[in-house]
Order: sequence, then structure tokens, then C-alpha cells
Amino acid sequence: MAKFVTIGERLSTTAPAVNKAFLERDPEPILMRAKQQLDAGAVYLDVNIGPAESYGPDLMKWAVQLLQSNFDNVPLALDTSNMQAIEAGISVYNRAKGKPIVNSADAAGRIEYIDLAAANDAIIIALCNGEGIAADNDERMAYCQTMLERGLEHGMETDDMWFDPLFLVIKGMQDKQMDILEFIKMLSDMDLKSTGGLSNNSNGMPKHIRPIMDSAMVAMAMQCGLTSAIVNPNDLRLMETIKSCDVIKNNILYADSYLEL
Amino acid sequence: MAKFVTIGERLSTTAPAVNKAFLERDPEPILMRAKQQLDAGAVYLDVNIGPAESYGPDLMKWAVQLLQSNFDNVPLALDTSNMQAIEAGISVYNRAKGKPIVNSADAAGRIEYIDLAAANDAIIIALCNGEGIAADNDERMAYCQTMLERGLEHGMETDDMWFDPLFLVIKGMQDKQMDILEFIKMLSDMDLKSTGGLSNNSNGMPKHIRPIMDSAMVAMAMQCGLTSAIVNPNDLRLMETIKSCDVIKNNILYADSYLEL
Repeated sequence: MAKFVTIGERLSTTAPAVNKAFLERDPEPILMRAKQQLDAGAVYLDVNIGPAESYGPDLMKWAVQLLQSNFDNVPLALDTSNMQAIEAGISVYNRAKGKPIVNSADAAGRIEYIDLAAANDAIIIALCNGEGIAADNDERMAYCQTMLERGLEHGMETDDMWFDPLFLVIKGMQDKQMDILEFIKMLSDMDLKSTGGLSNNSNGMPKHIRPIMDSAMVAMAMQCGLTSAIVNPNDLRLMETIKSCDVIKNNILYADSYLEL
Repeated sequence: MAKFVTIGERLSTTAPAVNKAFLERDPEPILMRAKQQLDAGAVYLDVNIGPAESYGPDLMKWAVQLLQSNFDNVPLALDTSNMQAIEAGISVYNRAKGKPIVNSADAAGRIEYIDLAAANDAIIIALCNGEGIAADNDERMAYCQTMLERGLEHGMETDDMWFDPLFLVIKGMQDKQMDILEFIKMLSDMDLKSTGGLSNNSNGMPKHIRPIMDSAMVAMAMQCGLTSAIVNPNDLRLMETIKSCDVIKNNILYADSYLEL
């Protein structure tokens, strides 16, 4: 099996400092957060520029070139609801270290993101949702099938479709957590790749609890076959857990120094 | 589902201080370690007196009475290769907080421990091993079946048979870890309870790594359906992980204070 793929989530307009730096095209805060995440072991970096309606294409190009020129063509996930901005980002993207990821499609209003990824030989994150949150795994699987067919029709390889079960918040949806984990197992049994915003599960919990809960969740999800996650790579406990699960799954060879690698 | 059952492992003759205290019938070191484990959330305490050939029965009686009188009839796992010592311990054991656990039977030379547990209405830990370590899950399952039949023939309830897959050391048997986890899933799919000496997996690793690896392993094993483990309850990271997995599995209700409960 391949090593788990972490996608660093910290370059996002939801962080005020990042939002400001994007708007002002100020490289320093962006480069600092990118370096922190890569030093901590992130494989991909997510670049979430928000809706960015008019200036999206310019901003995404700027961000892609800034990050790839400073960090040896680091592979990126292009994260925005502005499709033109994603295309603009891909137009300047260097694939030496991996295809770009388009973040994200769903089975309803965002299904055309699959076509966009297919047309640009990109990876798509395909959220197993329709207009609202799926009620159960039958509905999740129906959305998955819809998106899988769409991708195949457009010539995608299944390995380039990473299905996202949508992690649900424990505070409020505690009794749905095992469904999500079972759905990841279903994807794995179908040889489909998976990813997702892992920390959704611990939303609203006290800050000191979140790394503990996220670590438990990622280990359970990796046992079910989760192949990737969108995470905070500067959560040391989480990254230690991911590496340890990769050892247990025999994805990476154990060495006494494996936590430092 | 029921809350995960932790069995505290720190009252063992393999610890020189405990061995000395057992031999000298010195209550203080025993009570101190018992209290540390119970304060940290251990449900059962394992009482491992070693082979204890001649003095075993006396020692086990002394230990059972000492612990149960000081800690409100704490439930105990009686752990020795001396069958008479186990019987002696059970003869003075108070069941108010749970049946005694007999630790342990296997499918070869120790199969009669099942008969002993059955005759005394005790729980048995049934190690899925024969003369040596099982080569694969078919062999593990054959041993499990042998012991299950033996227990049922002697009138045991299946809930009183806790099957132990035998956790294997990662350093040397890295490629066998997923087999063990799959076997736990097989037991769970058969509605059988399970337990085991979890920290075997991290044997020989640097001390700072063991809580990290053990936590990853217990989360993966709990996802597979592990219902109990023999652990060091004073490993804070491990206990936090177990509680978090119990929340994710909806075995205990989430509260912001769940780690303190």
C-alpha cells in the first residue's frame, strides 16, 4: 500500500492573516505557513482562496507560482468555488512532484468540477454529498457512483478520484461516526481512494481535546482504508499517529527514527 | 456497544519491586500501584504472581483479599501458571464488581484453564495459540474454535470467553500486524469478545515511541472491534485514545469533560 497522503489545510482565507496576505499579495505570511507545514511533513498544500470572484484567476496564479518556485514544485490542491481560478492555477502549475488536486466536486451543484479535473488531467476531491448531507451510506454510495460514472465518462482514472465521505461533527452527530468509518471501508473495498477534512469531527470541542480526538479518528479511518486527509500538519500528535498507522499497515518500513522522517 | 474494558498490567512479578513485595507480603508497593492504575481509569487489575509453585495459593489469596478490601471489591484478573493458585484466589474473591478473570488458556498445554474458568463461573482469556505462534488467521481461527467448543461443552457463556489474538512485535513482524487486526475483526463479526497484551506490538522500541505506537494500535484495534486490552493505564496518551475511540464508537456519551471521567 502507498503511504498516507496529507494535505496541509493552513493556507486558507478562513485564517484572517492568510486572507489579508492573499488580498495584498504579501508573500511572507504565505511562505511562512507553507514552510511550517512542509517541515512538519505535509505532502500536498491546500490553497484555499475562498470564492475570489473577480480576482480569483490572478490570485491563484500568483499563489501557485509563489509556492512552487519557493518550495521545489510542491504539489498543491487548488481550493475555490471559482472554476476559472482553478483553471488559471493549473495553467501555471508544474507537475514535477504530482498532479494538481481540484478541491472539490460534489454530486449536485459542483459536479462540473469533475469535468474540469478530467479536462486538465488533475486529481478531483469528490465529496459524497448532494444538496445536503447524505442521510445514510446508501445515499453516500449513490453520490459516489454518480461522480465515479461522471469521471469515467470524461476519461478519468479512478486513482485520480479521491472520494470524501464528509467527516461529521461528533458534538451533535455522535451516533453517525461509525457510518462514516464504514463508508470509508466501503470505498476501500472498491479500491477507491479517499480523503476528507478530518478535523470536522472535533469541531466545537475544547482546543486541548481536538488533537486527541482527531488522532483517534484518523487511526480508525486509516484502519478502514482512508488513503489521504486534509489536516493541520502542525498538529504533532496527529502526524505521529498517521506515521504510526503507516508503520502498522506496512506502508512505510519501521525504523527507530520513523517519527523524524 | 459496551465501554472498552481496560485490564491494568502493572501488578506483575516481571517488575522487581512488585516481585519483592509479593514475596515479602508487603502491602504498600502493591496498594500504591493498584491505586495509580485505578485512579487512571483501569477497570480490572491483573494480578500476575508468576509460576509461584509452592506458595502460589497462599500468595494469590493474600493479594486478592488485600486488593479487594482496600479498593471496594475491585475486579481482578488472576494471572499465573499455577492452577491451584487461581482456584485459591477465586475461593476468596468477591464478585460484587465483576467476575474474576482467569489469565490465561491457550489451545494446547493450557486448554484446561478453560475448564477451570467454567467450573468457577469465571471469565477466561483464551489465547489463540497452539504450541507456537499461529502462522496465519486460519490457524488462529482453528485455535479459537477449539477453545470455544471446549468452553461451550463445559457450560460457559460465550461472553465469558475473551479471545486474545496475541499482538506481535512490530520490530521483526511488521508485515503481520494487519493480520492481527483482521483477526480481531473476525472475532467481532462472530460476536466474540477479545482482549490482549497490546504493548507487545511496541516491544523493543525506544521508550518515547511506545505510547505513540500503542495508541495508534489500540485505535485501529478498537475500530476492528477489540473489546478489551491488558494495558498500562498510567500511559496517559493510551487512555485518552481509548476514551476517544469509545466516544467515536458511541460507547460513551461525549461531554467536554470526557477525558476526565
